[in-house]
Amino acid sequence: MSRIVLGPNQYGKAECRLVRVDRDRDAHTIEDLTVTTQLRGDFEACHVDGDNSLVVATDTQKNTVHAFARDGIDSPEAFLLRLADHFVDGFEQVTGAEMTALSHTWGRLGDHAFLRDGTSTRTARVERGPETSTVTAGLTDCTILKSTDSEFHGFPRDRYTTLAETDDRILATSLTATWTYAGTDHDWDALHASITRTLLDTFTDHHSLALQQTIYAMGRAVLETHDTVTSIDLSCPNKHHFLVDLEPFGLDNPGEVFHAADRPYGLIRATVMRED
Amino acid sequence: MSRIVLGPNQYGKAECRLVRVDRDRDAHTIEDLTVTTQLRGDFEACHVDGDNSLVVATDTQKNTVHAFARDGIDSPEAFLLRLADHFVDGFEQVTGAEMTALSHTWGRLGDHAFLRDGTSTRTARVERGPETSTVTAGLTDCTILKSTDSEFHGFPRDRYTTLAETDDRILATSLTATWTYAGTDHDWDALHASITRTLLDTFTDHHSLALQQTIYAMGRAVLETHDTVTSIDLSCPNKHHFLVDLEPFGLDNPGEVFHAADRPYGLIRATVMRED
Amino acid sequence: MSRIVLGPNQYGKAECRLVRVDRDRDAHTIEDLTVTTQLRGDFEACHVDGDNSLVVATDTQKNTVHAFARDGIDSPEAFLLRLADHFVDGFEQVTGAEMTALSHTWGRLGDHAFLRDGTSTRTARVERGPETSTVTAGLTDCTILKSTDSEFHGFPRDRYTTLAETDDRILATSLTATWTYAGTDHDWDALHASITRTLLDTFTDHHSLALQQTIYAMGRAVLETHDTVTSIDLSCPNKHHFLVDLEPFGLDNPGEVFHAADRPYGLIRATVMRED
Amino acid sequence: MSRIVLGPNQYGKAECRLVRVDRDRDAHTIEDLTVTTQLRGDFEACHVDGDNSLVVATDTQKNTVHAFARDGIDSPEAFLLRLADHFVDGFEQVTGAEMTALSHTWGRLGDHAFLRDGTSTRTARVERGPETSTVTAGLTDCTILKSTDSEFHGFPRDRYTTLAETDDRILATSLTATWTYAGTDHDWDALHASITRTLLDTFTDHHSLALQQTIYAMGRAVLETHDTVTSIDLSCPNKHHFLVDLEPFGLDNPGEVFHAADRPYGLIRATVMRED
Repeated sequence: MSRIVLGPNQYGKAECRLVRVDRDRDAHTIEDLTVTTQLRGDFEACHVDGDNSLVVATDTQKNTVHAFARDGIDSPEAFLLRLADHFVDGFEQVTGAEMTALSHTWGRLGDHAFLRDGTSTRTARVERGPETSTVTAGLTDCTILKSTDSEFHGFPRDRYTTLAETDDRILATSLTATWTYAGTDHDWDALHASITRTLLDTFTDHHSLALQQTIYAMGRAVLETHDTVTSIDLSCPNKHHFLVDLEPFGLDNPGEVFHAADRPYGLIRATVMRED
Repeated sequence: MSRIVLGPNQYGKAECRLVRVDRDRDAHTIEDLTVTTQLRGDFEACHVDGDNSLVVATDTQKNTVHAFARDGIDSPEAFLLRLADHFVDGFEQVTGAEMTALSHTWGRLGDHAFLRDGTSTRTARVERGPETSTVTAGLTDCTILKSTDSEFHGFPRDRYTTLAETDDRILATSLTATWTYAGTDHDWDALHASITRTLLDTFTDHHSLALQQTIYAMGRAVLETHDTVTSIDLSCPNKHHFLVDLEPFGLDNPGEVFHAADRPYGLIRATVMRED
Repeated sequence: MSRIVLGPNQYGKAECRLVRVDRDRDAHTIEDLTVTTQLRGDFEACHVDGDNSLVVATDTQKNTVHAFARDGIDSPEAFLLRLADHFVDGFEQVTGAEMTALSHTWGRLGDHAFLRDGTSTRTARVERGPETSTVTAGLTDCTILKSTDSEFHGFPRDRYTTLAETDDRILATSLTATWTYAGTDHDWDALHASITRTLLDTFTDHHSLALQQTIYAMGRAVLETHDTVTSIDLSCPNKHHFLVDLEPFGLDNPGEVFHAADRPYGLIRATVMRED
Repeated sequence: MSRIVLGPNQYGKAECRLVRVDRDRDAHTIEDLTVTTQLRGDFEACHVDGDNSLVVATDTQKNTVHAFARDGIDSPEAFLLRLADHFVDGFEQVTGAEMTALSHTWGRLGDHAFLRDGTSTRTARVERGPETSTVTAGLTDCTILKSTDSEFHGFPRDRYTTLAETDDRILATSLTATWTYAGTDHDWDALHASITRTLLDTFTDHHSLALQQTIYAMGRAVLETHDTVTSIDLSCPNKHHFLVDLEPFGLDNPGEVFHAADRPYGLIRATVMRED
């Protein structure tokens, strides 16, 4: 039998709940991140022999997150880049790092009061190799719905097909989008806002013949309008809204009363990217 | 030994996920509710003997929710009042009903496109007795934070007290508020918006010496400005934000870097009401 | 307008995640509780004026939970009784307390290794007034299913009734049961095990004509066999399993293939109690 | 600028909640799966033009899951293999499929009564390419704890390191393991049980110098004892249990009272595999 070996591995501290208050002006600002650090490198001795002499403790990683926040976060992407560089450049045994953050948005109620905005969560990820970093960003838990302008027909029918064709349905999804940037020096906040706006605008204006088509259009629009984005992944549940049959009660239902189903749901994923 | 008897009981259909589209104008509107129906009455024969002859099936209750939505929802409170009256007035054996709804808010992206707003969830409840109904309304999952204007000191110290006193801390909570209305004929949407605004404004402007004081001030403000509210319950976790000790890393931390803890958390509840 | 006053209120520390290891024997034992403390009493000055001089800090409450665990937990009920007495007897301003615990069960893998058993969660609650305590206990998240021996028919049919009658269906529920004990000095662990066994045995043997009937039978069985229980509440979702119509695919379905639905679900609640 | 193209994509129906009752013997058996289907192939026309002529509807996929269950499930792996073959062999445009299942275990209460066992969830996945399938299996949400036999020391100390070294701590994790089989014709249930037992036995007997070492030992043991497993991934949160400092209360704490923290937590991942 072949020899048994350690394959790919990584470790770190997950879900540091970091909140930073900026008090420089009368009106405070807050940043609210959930940060996860993961390191890769020469950790075979730990796995095989329990030798921790090269293992930067996950507690140390957490402390580093806190300490680095003292100097400001700026943007999730910039903060993760700093962290990734610290670990890979600072420890010989660390040859790669994956730093991720969820960014929770707060709206302003007053100079010192805030209301958490649960509409969506911003995501960021830095993948640092021995030399360079790749930045991806995105959003998740962004639930959007079209009350018309959505059709679905023309699909193949086999023994197991019972679905009726429709030229007017509700289309709803909880958008998770993740895009990759060329380069590591951008106005991250402005880009994120602009790309999010492009995604939502395209969803709003698109006449959908399939959720796949809508997703592709959204991704394509981002690439067409943002040179710095090299590819985008979209993962979308098709949150089915079933028109309720009211005929047994002597009522019509002209596209008004729907049951929003939980499970099962469609699950549609696609990458849109630049050819080379 | 004393005789064993059936005590209080109720049953119904929980969490009907009802979405209604209003297509009367070019710009659609949507209403998105999670409705739960519960009936009370003469159901002893079912419990004791399995005799279902008086048991309005939970499936029938769900169908009724769907059918009633055909005529419009208007507001969660009005919709629940109609449902409660239908069951109590329409079935002799039904002597009471508890109808509740969560209302999920959507923002507008376009005439037919919407973005779900996860900032908070509106709640409504109708408690119908043999003759009359009581309406309560509220909101939940509304996370708010003050970055200053919050102190906590002067509490008693015993053998188990280690907490330091503070005159400047982060105060954060996820507000659940439920208030009771006098009467059953109001502009429910306008009242809900106004009361929510009062709660948030008071939170914003209040200088807090304890979360209890803030809660009481919020409830009191609602009663002072809304004659139709007879009492209000507030249930608030104290979502602790701990200032991280950066001294071991040679750094100060002038109220800037915090760890947002999950558990344990404070849990503060109070009712504010009119005397008689 | 009538005067605005503080109504019922309570506060404390929620969800202390307490794990205790007993190392007295070679084979360790572990106890794993989620403890919530709530105090009631003379706290008006805090609410109205922000005067904390009588407010036993929630942090102090948490510390007390930890310190008391040093002397052993024994059982959740006994531990909560000790805590409740400490707060009410030890602080003049505290006139009542509600102490609750979830108890998470672990199975044994070895002398020092354990596997968490997610089958159900044991619950306990002590309601302490100025003089005496009432102990309730229970279980939650206990999902049980009957693959036959369940019927549902004979219910009234109105305009909104479409449900077919059935004399053989799947019956499934996630049991939440809470019972009240007479007295405060019992072998809590043995009682809990015995009552749980009675609930499950009754569910197993019962031929069900309605979930209401099954619930009542379960509660009645507990009261008949456990003199020390004065009443029991059962709250049970009816987790619907719908027989899938396979006829469009040229297949029969003799009670074999089901879709387990999430929402809506039936929700059935009843109390069974001793007549005085 | 380079041309924008559709990249990798897949779609299907997620989380079909399928329950199957086998009534062949007096004592029924039940199988309870959450099945997700995903297809890959020639779906560019749908994405680009909304042309659905090659799109096997997700509703059809769900129907197929139900219809195939009529002939029995046998094991999750066997069921998913049948489904994958159906879609890839039956539709020219489908060139690959990913079929996954969660399997929820039920214990027996009687001939027709069952109790859901939440101790862990069994997972299965079939990755079907144009010609062949690869089967992976695993388990998730399996929470295990060692009350001793766990040390952690010898790690590097830098400016941000504050963690104390320890030679006796609680080690706890929620195990997610996924292993890949050679071949597609095995006694899947027996293999799953045996591998699970190997994982738990190794955890029980291992004296741990780091969670990494424990994970590696668990994976290695599986490969050493199961020829048919080619690699195994283990993903383990380090669920920290902090010894509570009771000294301020005048108490010692000889490894007895712990606070089980939620977040942040360590996150350790490793693959153990055969060389070649």
